[in-house]
Amino acid sequence: MVGVEKAIFDGAASFEPSQPDVYGNAHPKDLLRAITEEHEYLLALARSHIASAAQFERPLLLQLFRLAAKYEANPERFATPIKPLSGKLLISAFYEPSTRTRLSFESAWHRLGGDIMSITDRSTTGIAKGESLSDVAEMFNNYGDCVVLRDNREESVMEMMDKLRIPIINAGNGCDEHPTQALADLYTIMKWKPALLAEEPAEKIRIGVVGVPRRMRTVRSLLTLLSRFSGMVEEIVVIHDGADEELYAPGQKENLVREGLRIRESTDLNGELPDLDVVYINAIAWVKDGFEVMGGNLKLNANSPLKKSAIVLHPLARGDELCTSLDNTQHNWYFAQARGAVFMRMALLTCMVQRTEMVMDIV
Amino acid sequence: MVGVEKAIFDGAASFEPSQPDVYGNAHPKDLLRAITEEHEYLLALARSHIASAAQFERPLLLQLFRLAAKYEANPERFATPIKPLSGKLLISAFYEPSTRTRLSFESAWHRLGGDIMSITDRSTTGIAKGESLSDVAEMFNNYGDCVVLRDNREESVMEMMDKLRIPIINAGNGCDEHPTQALADLYTIMKWKPALLAEEPAEKIRIGVVGVPRRMRTVRSLLTLLSRFSGMVEEIVVIHDGADEELYAPGQKENLVREGLRIRESTDLNGELPDLDVVYINAIAWVKDGFEVMGGNLKLNANSPLKKSAIVLHPLARGDELCTSLDNTQHNWYFAQARGAVFMRMALLTCMVQRTEMVMDIV
Amino acid sequence: MVGVEKAIFDGAASFEPSQPDVYGNAHPKDLLRAITEEHEYLLALARSHIASAAQFERPLLLQLFRLAAKYEANPERFATPIKPLSGKLLISAFYEPSTRTRLSFESAWHRLGGDIMSITDRSTTGIAKGESLSDVAEMFNNYGDCVVLRDNREESVMEMMDKLRIPIINAGNGCDEHPTQALADLYTIMKWKPALLAEEPAEKIRIGVVGVPRRMRTVRSLLTLLSRFSGMVEEIVVIHDGADEELYAPGQKENLVREGLRIRESTDLNGELPDLDVVYINAIAWVKDGFEVMGGNLKLNANSPLKKSAIVLHPLARGDELCTSLDNTQHNWYFAQARGAVFMRMALLTCMVQRTEMVMDIV
Repeated sequence: MVGVEKAIFDGAASFEPSQPDVYGNAHPKDLLRAITEEHEYLLALARSHIASAAQFERPLLLQLFRLAAKYEANPERFATPIKPLSGKLLISAFYEPSTRTRLSFESAWHRLGGDIMSITDRSTTGIAKGESLSDVAEMFNNYGDCVVLRDNREESVMEMMDKLRIPIINAGNGCDEHPTQALADLYTIMKWKPALLAEEPAEKIRIGVVGVPRRMRTVRSLLTLLSRFSGMVEEIVVIHDGADEELYAPGQKENLVREGLRIRESTDLNGELPDLDVVYINAIAWVKDGFEVMGGNLKLNANSPLKKSAIVLHPLARGDELCTSLDNTQHNWYFAQARGAVFMRMALLTCMVQRTEMVMDIV
Repeated sequence: MVGVEKAIFDGAASFEPSQPDVYGNAHPKDLLRAITEEHEYLLALARSHIASAAQFERPLLLQLFRLAAKYEANPERFATPIKPLSGKLLISAFYEPSTRTRLSFESAWHRLGGDIMSITDRSTTGIAKGESLSDVAEMFNNYGDCVVLRDNREESVMEMMDKLRIPIINAGNGCDEHPTQALADLYTIMKWKPALLAEEPAEKIRIGVVGVPRRMRTVRSLLTLLSRFSGMVEEIVVIHDGADEELYAPGQKENLVREGLRIRESTDLNGELPDLDVVYINAIAWVKDGFEVMGGNLKLNANSPLKKSAIVLHPLARGDELCTSLDNTQHNWYFAQARGAVFMRMALLTCMVQRTEMVMDIV
Repeated sequence: MVGVEKAIFDGAASFEPSQPDVYGNAHPKDLLRAITEEHEYLLALARSHIASAAQFERPLLLQLFRLAAKYEANPERFATPIKPLSGKLLISAFYEPSTRTRLSFESAWHRLGGDIMSITDRSTTGIAKGESLSDVAEMFNNYGDCVVLRDNREESVMEMMDKLRIPIINAGNGCDEHPTQALADLYTIMKWKPALLAEEPAEKIRIGVVGVPRRMRTVRSLLTLLSRFSGMVEEIVVIHDGADEELYAPGQKENLVREGLRIRESTDLNGELPDLDVVYINAIAWVKDGFEVMGGNLKLNANSPLKKSAIVLHPLARGDELCTSLDNTQHNWYFAQARGAVFMRMALLTCMVQRTEMVMDIV
């Protein structure tokens, strides 16, 4: 015997799925209870474009966390028969390859009962024939109710927004921003410790960010959102390999500091780890036609000197920088982060296409 | 600050979509009122294949315009809860790359409540392994309720029709035909001036067609459909750059003239413009493995000597031949044309899969 | 006139679909009546992974044949309004190109009312960035309710199963297995002659398998399933071109013989044909990055010395080995086989995602 037949006789393939969900469902109910519904913030999102993390103020973030937690705490409740997005049509336009983010958005939309049209490849599109994004936006106005756009050019989102009469979400524009990833990151932190929602939490946290804020879109958007919760942050340590001449874009650090964040830089990952409560690690920076792996010597594994209570976050997909030996440890919150991203996107999409009223507690 | 964050602080990205729909919703209600429902023509489309513009006689065209206008006049009405295509499955087979036409058809189908399976790329298919279209058609019989086919080979549609027991729509077969584009073109003209529906309208129109009827599938199909309304046409002027030895396929012009169209040729675009009521412009001709841009010196912009009341049509995607300076003028009916194409396809698809009765006024 | 317009005037394109369904709907009702419902076997499939044909014992196979026949006998019955998969989300992950199998699964899922997210191309995925299938599986846990996987690497299914908490179906893993194709093959044989369901049928059948069991996944899975019905098999003749040094994988033939199959090898196709009741032919073997056509001199056509009552099966897509001259003969059961595959997959999917109760006769 060979192949899967052999594996099955060897007992490797059980008829019962054996893997328990040990790290996925972390505490959305606690987070839900910790926030009071104030739905006017959600209603105000109706027909809004989502281009930048900078658009989100603290009260709106709290309400989005709450709605995401409500979805996550009871995933079946809003599927059949409520289907808040029934009759709504999403244009999922991924001109830069991505399965993870695309499927995360599409899953969110389908879970709410909506329909989807996907573009998964620039080469099969009119853009390959030289069509402008402005004209594509005009076309999208006629075809759907919402657009999710990923493109490797920074200016793509703004070009589309200028012509769209339906809302768009920036799902990553080159090295600029990835606001919904940052929403999911922060949602994970809040699920982990709902007490951090307080204006001035009793215990502040120290966050390590392994990456280059100037060049990594997930890091850029995350730092912006963290500035809305500066009261909970003892310090942010930006950990890098020293290779980049400029760690920050012009004005980037100054803005964050002005918002109340304390930021320090370091090149000594293992030296910093024992003092960090949250470690956010990412190694990919987007460049024109592809990506670049950075900080090759900055790696985490089960033997890294992590604080016992520390959680590790990663936007995924991962490379060598995040060892699978951490997967079965209590530090692994990156899988919970990926899971929560779906519910966070459900929350955002519901509001953008004006179906908030269908999922509010009090109408 | 850089990127979209900066743009947002500069006010470029409003939370409210600001672009009004100035040219999209033009007059479908007037057109609806101008035509009396005679649904036997629509019912006769049940399970029909749509291969050529030549299949459409005038009374059927009127009823299709009417149903399209009915959908466009009230887009929400047939979404939830009627869903005329509920339980119906479309096979959207685009072996030649296209986003615009694919999404237009898929949007139409989804808007009516149907489900879709998409093929967006020849390279991911069995055809890449050498499978014949006849065998693909046999497979499609088992998998769906309707096929939309785009292929760069002229003979593809006929090969499939020969084996299909479900209806197929030709969405562009090489340089041969693109009948639903022509339906959308004519629908736009009728929305613009419903008075043209009369057998012998009081004011006839002069139509300029910038392109090569022998080689451009959209032009070929449009001319055929215009011949069904020869009473409204004062003259058709085919405007070309003089580069093609043969402007027409064998018999093509003779057929059109026999149907009552007056056709003249010209190479002087700006000389003709002041006398034209409708200017249809297209620069792309399909060749074996791609496309060719033709008539590079035939261009329209806001300074072109257009008649004040003239409308410009373009099947899109556009290149240099149609300047964006026209977008915010009253000549721009090409965006209305793209929008109307969705509703026209809704009308056609409803009839083809035998759900006409669900959307008729009088049953 | 040229193109489809000419063809239409020549009468080649009728407005009424003319092709009758002469070989598609063969006898599902007889098969349905021949099997008594014992739904405990179907209920036990809930949340199971389907990796290998070796997982299927005879009683479960009978119940799957029965449910497939029930769907096929009355295709409309379970569409609207029952929709047994309403609210369920399929991840259709085809990392190796395939339209036929992908659309067969997607059609099955849609026919039952479920929603789908498709991956049609490895190059547009995170796997192209070096992501492991284990991490992809973690992601899939959050995104859908069931996975269909095709991959050219044999080990892919096991890697995913190890991390998945939702059920997965192996839709072809390199040269290893393709269990649902084998289910469809056997379902076709049972529809052809329901009397073969008896433990010891009065008339046994002689089956010719043109192919190489060691290297063809469809042949491997089919032989395994046939071993569950050894009582109906007089003999299996493996017909090959003599080019392969090893016809079987280590232990493969011994296993089949132990299960009661009589197996003989031959290189004389035409010499064997007059004695065969079922001829299964396939010419494609999967290799690392593509496929190889084997047995180039083993071909069937309408002049082949087939027994008058013999049926021909082929997993399709076909090449030269199966001549279209057989299409309009009574030997053609390969189109019925492709059609039945959709209903067989409907049966399997219903059970895997725990919706069996919605389609049982007796609850």
